[in-house]
Amino acid sequence: MTAPSELDDSFHVFDTTLRDGAQREGINLTVADKLAIARHLDDFGVGFIEGGWPGANPRDTEFFARARQEIDFRHARLVAFGATRRPGARAAEDHQVRALLESGAEVITLVAKSHDRHVELALRTTLDENLAMVADTVSHLKAEGRRVFVDCEHFFDGYRANPEYAKAVVRTASEAGADVVILCDTNGGMLPAQIQAVVATVLADTGARLGIHAQDDTGCAVANTLAAVDAGVTHVQCTANGYGERVGNANLFPVVAALELKYGKRVLPEGRLREMTRISHAIAEVVNLTPSTHQPYVGVSAFAHKAGLHASAIKVDPDLYQHIDPELVGNTMRMLVSDMAGRASIELKGKELGVDLGGDRELVGRVVERVKERELAGYTYEAADASFELLLRAEAEGRPLKYFEVESWRAITEDRPDGSHANEATVKLWAKGERIVATAEGNGPVNALDRSLRVALEKLYPELAKLDLVDYKVRILEGVHGTQSTTRVLISTSDGTGEWATVGVAENVIAASWQALEDAYTYGLLRAGVTPPA
Amino acid sequence: MTAPSELDDSFHVFDTTLRDGAQREGINLTVADKLAIARHLDDFGVGFIEGGWPGANPRDTEFFARARQEIDFRHARLVAFGATRRPGARAAEDHQVRALLESGAEVITLVAKSHDRHVELALRTTLDENLAMVADTVSHLKAEGRRVFVDCEHFFDGYRANPEYAKAVVRTASEAGADVVILCDTNGGMLPAQIQAVVATVLADTGARLGIHAQDDTGCAVANTLAAVDAGVTHVQCTANGYGERVGNANLFPVVAALELKYGKRVLPEGRLREMTRISHAIAEVVNLTPSTHQPYVGVSAFAHKAGLHASAIKVDPDLYQHIDPELVGNTMRMLVSDMAGRASIELKGKELGVDLGGDRELVGRVVERVKERELAGYTYEAADASFELLLRAEAEGRPLKYFEVESWRAITEDRPDGSHANEATVKLWAKGERIVATAEGNGPVNALDRSLRVALEKLYPELAKLDLVDYKVRILEGVHGTQSTTRVLISTSDGTGEWATVGVAENVIAASWQALEDAYTYGLLRAGVTPPA
Repeated sequence: MTAPSELDDSFHVFDTTLRDGAQREGINLTVADKLAIARHLDDFGVGFIEGGWPGANPRDTEFFARARQEIDFRHARLVAFGATRRPGARAAEDHQVRALLESGAEVITLVAKSHDRHVELALRTTLDENLAMVADTVSHLKAEGRRVFVDCEHFFDGYRANPEYAKAVVRTASEAGADVVILCDTNGGMLPAQIQAVVATVLADTGARLGIHAQDDTGCAVANTLAAVDAGVTHVQCTANGYGERVGNANLFPVVAALELKYGKRVLPEGRLREMTRISHAIAEVVNLTPSTHQPYVGVSAFAHKAGLHASAIKVDPDLYQHIDPELVGNTMRMLVSDMAGRASIELKGKELGVDLGGDRELVGRVVERVKERELAGYTYEAADASFELLLRAEAEGRPLKYFEVESWRAITEDRPDGSHANEATVKLWAKGERIVATAEGNGPVNALDRSLRVALEKLYPELAKLDLVDYKVRILEGVHGTQSTTRVLISTSDGTGEWATVGVAENVIAASWQALEDAYTYGLLRAGVTPPA
Repeated sequence: MTAPSELDDSFHVFDTTLRDGAQREGINLTVADKLAIARHLDDFGVGFIEGGWPGANPRDTEFFARARQEIDFRHARLVAFGATRRPGARAAEDHQVRALLESGAEVITLVAKSHDRHVELALRTTLDENLAMVADTVSHLKAEGRRVFVDCEHFFDGYRANPEYAKAVVRTASEAGADVVILCDTNGGMLPAQIQAVVATVLADTGARLGIHAQDDTGCAVANTLAAVDAGVTHVQCTANGYGERVGNANLFPVVAALELKYGKRVLPEGRLREMTRISHAIAEVVNLTPSTHQPYVGVSAFAHKAGLHASAIKVDPDLYQHIDPELVGNTMRMLVSDMAGRASIELKGKELGVDLGGDRELVGRVVERVKERELAGYTYEAADASFELLLRAEAEGRPLKYFEVESWRAITEDRPDGSHANEATVKLWAKGERIVATAEGNGPVNALDRSLRVALEKLYPELAKLDLVDYKVRILEGVHGTQSTTRVLISTSDGTGEWATVGVAENVIAASWQALEDAYTYGLLRAGVTPPA
């Protein structure tokens, strides 16, 4: 289990997604999830992965047993988390302390109380006994050959209440042999200036090697972590995507990116930072949360520009408009097609989609006009790349791409006296020279239309069987007219390997959905490489 | 339009949700949306609301015209945003500068370039002409009696490239009469220590009154804003929920909360901070984005505790486990497992609606159970007071209030070969002992249902003629199943003297709309004082 890392021990990137991150409301990890996340974190190159609390939680005990057998760590060391021994007992006889050793983890993080009131109220013991618990447990684990880190829980609140006692805990842990003593802002209420001042004082007064663990309750966890580094800590505890209790923990990704790109400090093995966007999204998939679109560095919007005024300058020098080259973190710049769309942004967008418009000024002009006219009617292309590409191709080729020609459709929703609803749709269309009429039911009128379109086309275009509607959004434009407003529908469709978004706008939700569905299917067939009828 | 604010001018909370916040990918605001958001921001108590760029965008021009007529600001001053005059022209003759004056806004924010390369590449003019543009435009607007703020775009990157020029822009703006010069981290790449050092130097070197505008690309926008305050700025520019281009802007809510609760600085009128959670969620509803559950201070998870180990200690002293009392920001502590509407809040809500529940513990318990059950199914009563009041009365009286009894309904939407759509609905119901069947057409299925219900009831309940649907919102819950998701509809109805909101949830949008319509009409008749049939 010894991880051959190319980085020395002078600075620790310590991840606690699997332990503290799992406290986030809505996250519930299986052992298989934990193993998958551990592989991603090791792949990213963190130095330490805190896997859980063996002995306190059977799932965590199992995780340590399986991780030892199933994962060949390339970069990270696995860490077991646990508490100092019980009051009045001996560490060598405490069964929870024994479970930490039995986990086989070569590194152990012990949580210790450092706020006097917490010692009295939550531990229900004396301040002196708490110090003895720290000293005894650290010494015991060291004697058993483990590396020990000590998390001082509620440190900053404790320091405010009783600075001498808080520092005594740090000193006790360090003198007993803890390699790093971590100052925790457990309630997350601190601001960077406070963190920096306290860390600097504790470092000067104790001489211990210090780490930082920040929660995000003030929205400053990343800045608090960096402020602690500025003040001299050499160990940062973070979680992937900032998952954690309440608001969350310091987000691993912006902390690491700031250290590497802003501080110029090597904290990951060579080349791993470029994997950050992919790994962030992969971990979100494992925990089953939608990746945050607006997360710093790694969100899909993190380098998205509503071009407008600046598009021509972006073409000349993109670095004038972005704080880093997005490729450094595995992300990409995106130009949004918005109602300020100018020629330059349309050209850039075309290039991104693989359609070269560079030479044809007249074509670009037509596309700009068409986008403006459609956006005035309520369409939005910034969230509907596939519809934009179909529009672009239609202008380039002089006619829209049509795999099928719809004659008419109808949707009926009926309420029954028993409170249930019937939804039925009929589609009449032409495809490959055939006229097809198909009817289907669904749990709503749009679902019924979707199904009737599939029934109509599935024999002629078997590629459609793979398509799946994965998201559906409705927005009413101009709310002042109540139900007489214009309706915009955005649909995301997947074929298992990629996802695309289409838009429809009409005076009612059914007609708007129909347009977005037609685009979704047309684009899906285009992606599948199906040749359109001549 | 003079806003009588109880706060003096020594510190500015400046909101730019309607201008810079609207740059967020996926946000597309109508004039009605902007008016609604401006009302919420004024209600929250910000000092300045930047409404948009009149003259550059017809929607923004209309917003200023309507805001002047329709909103009676209690706290905020409305601000128009625009650029310095064109190179080589005169400010007095620049039509975009004129549009700023014509907006009627008493305060104007001018954006000025302060990064030498941006002057050359984006403005395509000389460094001297850029200074002349700043001086001329500020003086002209001052001479016309407006208060002027100057946003120095790309200030921090510009300062790194050419500190003397960046400071010359600040000095020029200030000497020409700008009241505040705002240093903008437009690309969002700065960290707090950098911001603090630069602000302190610029303040010492220029003596200008300074403000800060931070973007969140490093995840430090809140901390950067506070670092600038520490260094001496007296004006902070933020957006509600941190909306903005790319990752977003400094989030108004944690910035204001830190200033009020951590710095002990009064920056909002008395009592407004307690409205923060409600206002944050209300603005998210208007822009049609799901409120972030993990947003600092205002997220539903911000004070949620996985009870476990600490439950008993939390009961003894909750302040040991939370950095502030959540009531200070209008949020509540939640113990997970039982994430329900509490008895106390139901009682308070009843009192607010004029239904006294104080004495009846058993009734309150029933209402809590019913709300919990309905919210699990997707209903939300936060934004649907009228539906909540109907639920409350139904529990209090032992049966729902019914002015009519629906037997069944049906809606048909049909697409015609010419591209037009036909929408027809039929309603069958009983009212005052009569069975009524009515059919109507509309421009969509919901509009057709609305009209058929009016046709059916208008003779028996002439009061309904006054009702008007003024807003209609659809949200798809559980997007992962595409069109098979649950749908929530919120409808606002007006009778000319007041407005009320109702909610419906069903497996499809038509059925959900129907529920919300039924509640809307029932509540309208109740409001009109119509006695229900025995």
